[in-house]
Amino acid sequence: SHSINLAVIPGDGIGQEVVAQGLKILAAVLPQDVKLETEEYDFGAKRYHATGETLTDADLDSLKKHDAILLGAIGDPSVPSGVLERGFLLKLRFAFDHHVNLRPSKLLPGVATPLAGQPEIDFVVVREGTEGPYTGNGGTIRKGTEHEVATEVSVNTAFGVERVVRDAFARAQARPRKKLTLVHKNNVLTFAGHLWTNIFTKVAAEFPEVTTDYLHVDAATIFLVTDPARFDVIVTDNLFGDIITDLAAAVSGGIGVAASGNINPSGEFPSMFEPVHGSAPDIAGQGKADPTATVLSVALLLRHLGYEAEAARVEEAVAADLTERGDSVRTTDEIGDALAARVAS
Amino acid sequence: SHSINLAVIPGDGIGQEVVAQGLKILAAVLPQDVKLETEEYDFGAKRYHATGETLTDADLDSLKKHDAILLGAIGDPSVPSGVLERGFLLKLRFAFDHHVNLRPSKLLPGVATPLAGQPEIDFVVVREGTEGPYTGNGGTIRKGTEHEVATEVSVNTAFGVERVVRDAFARAQARPRKKLTLVHKNNVLTFAGHLWTNIFTKVAAEFPEVTTDYLHVDAATIFLVTDPARFDVIVTDNLFGDIITDLAAAVSGGIGVAASGNINPSGEFPSMFEPVHGSAPDIAGQGKADPTATVLSVALLLRHLGYEAEAARVEEAVAADLTERGDSVRTTDEIGDALAARVAS
Ligand SMILES: CC(C)[C@H](C(=O)O)[C@@H](O)C(=O)O
Ligand SMILES: CC(C)[C@H](C(=O)O)[C@@H](O)C(=O)O
Repeated sequence: SHSINLAVIPGDGIGQEVVAQGLKILAAVLPQDVKLETEEYDFGAKRYHATGETLTDADLDSLKKHDAILLGAIGDPSVPSGVLERGFLLKLRFAFDHHVNLRPSKLLPGVATPLAGQPEIDFVVVREGTEGPYTGNGGTIRKGTEHEVATEVSVNTAFGVERVVRDAFARAQARPRKKLTLVHKNNVLTFAGHLWTNIFTKVAAEFPEVTTDYLHVDAATIFLVTDPARFDVIVTDNLFGDIITDLAAAVSGGIGVAASGNINPSGEFPSMFEPVHGSAPDIAGQGKADPTATVLSVALLLRHLGYEAEAARVEEAVAADLTERGDSVRTTDEIGDALAARVAS
Repeated sequence: SHSINLAVIPGDGIGQEVVAQGLKILAAVLPQDVKLETEEYDFGAKRYHATGETLTDADLDSLKKHDAILLGAIGDPSVPSGVLERGFLLKLRFAFDHHVNLRPSKLLPGVATPLAGQPEIDFVVVREGTEGPYTGNGGTIRKGTEHEVATEVSVNTAFGVERVVRDAFARAQARPRKKLTLVHKNNVLTFAGHLWTNIFTKVAAEFPEVTTDYLHVDAATIFLVTDPARFDVIVTDNLFGDIITDLAAAVSGGIGVAASGNINPSGEFPSMFEPVHGSAPDIAGQGKADPTATVLSVALLLRHLGYEAEAARVEEAVAADLTERGDSVRTTDEIGDALAARVAS
């Protein structure tokens, strides 16, 4: 008999509500003989205001012992921009070496999209998670004066790029269309661009069945709205991945249904699964949040831990719910209950 | 009687064809007593292959003498990525201190958009043009080895940010809705983010009539497809501006109609006007290119040189042509002729 020892971080705003539904679905879908243990952590704005802490070394030591982490959302207008993002979310992604940030986009039949003609959308973005302009390198001189200079350094290593490119090729290889698109801006960011392009070309030779192409990030945003069907797997850097996955979510059902996994493929550290959306303080506590993105993140979590059949059941439940929900207005809890009933049956 | 001394850079691919139409419209719209002098420059792939040169100091000296520059497109697959972009286009933008990169987006009635429901789109992006990750700062060590590290440095100065933010506020102030949105990623790029945000807040105090808000770049891409009507004027850095203006073009009629101005507001150096699209070598020389983006860039050029009535006439001609063109298939030349006839009448 197996067990899952899960760290649960509800976080701020709607994080609390959506994580509750994610756990409900997890309990409903797991086989009887799998023991689910959960430990809740109080990270986020409240703890920051009370203690000034965002994520301590002791916290990291505790989190490290879990098999995986389920996160709701972190962020509140009462905390200055950047404090929780850099001090908690990015700190955790970097500390646990979450270098594969996986973000699937699939537009299901009947689901609303801002695009005309309901195009076919079924791709996955493999966003690098530990390098690029996200490292916190950079600084400020003469702050607050008319001579201030602020820099941000994008750091890209052969080691960091190759492992994520290789992961993306393996994912493309495992999909029916076997197509991988590199997204960068190698005509302007030529130092990083050459590194990404050369490694992409090198690794491509090991995956002769995978069709490859390249798009500048600006052109990629055009295709995401004019021809999203052209994408199968995309690999890109941390910042470009951040930008295009929000756009991808917007065209494929909205950020209410966009899931993500911050994955450490070696298993050295626990991987973390979280909806792409934020804490949405404006609707928090009102039962208005759509828990679907969290539930789909639970599916990614299940797949990561080897529960493929259960992951598929959750995804099928969500697909059925999305195609059948029409204009019905349901509470967060009602959607969770409906999904729990589907996965259990 | 006045005169315009114009530098013309047709460039590569469809650049030749579209610039010819731009000049046709310019000749047709200018009052009889304005003397139009043009000098053509042969920059681009052909010259690079023949001489190895992209843009010399002597070239810059010649270009400097003109009142403005009209550019078609630069770029060809025969030249390695980055060589012409960094060696010509960005070199010129930096040498002539084109710090206001102006990119209007307007969806005209009847014009195709990938968005459902034909939303109202009428905004302008003020993209910073001389800083950010575009400066070429950065480098590579251990190139080609498994220990390669490549960096890209985004450089942001109070001087550079304040002048473009001020320009954007003035533009917002002059528009009916008077709304300005700052787009950045200040929760992750905290050094540059603080600089941009603080200066934005400071300058806002001088423009009490302008409503302001802030969006992270990832959220901005969502709104560009779900609620583009929310935007009036956007100010943002060089890279974010590059990305969101391609998306903006895609949703508001396509890059076939997206114009841009690389403006040096002080007039110390000539400003440069160019379509947002590239050289499209796949359709070059076939009369398939839409010259509209170039013609609208000519309108920006006219406005910059003080020919406001003529600029408006060109924009009205384009608006009428776009709303009436329907599914008609016309050559580059035919579209140019139709527009020339409209502005002359
Ligand atoms: C909150 C922020 C730090 C984060 C990011 O930029 O990665 C978010 O936008 C995301 O995409 O998960
Ligand atoms: C060709 C390239 C250097 C350029 C840019 O990135 O600025 C282009 O994409 C643009 O937007 O004008």
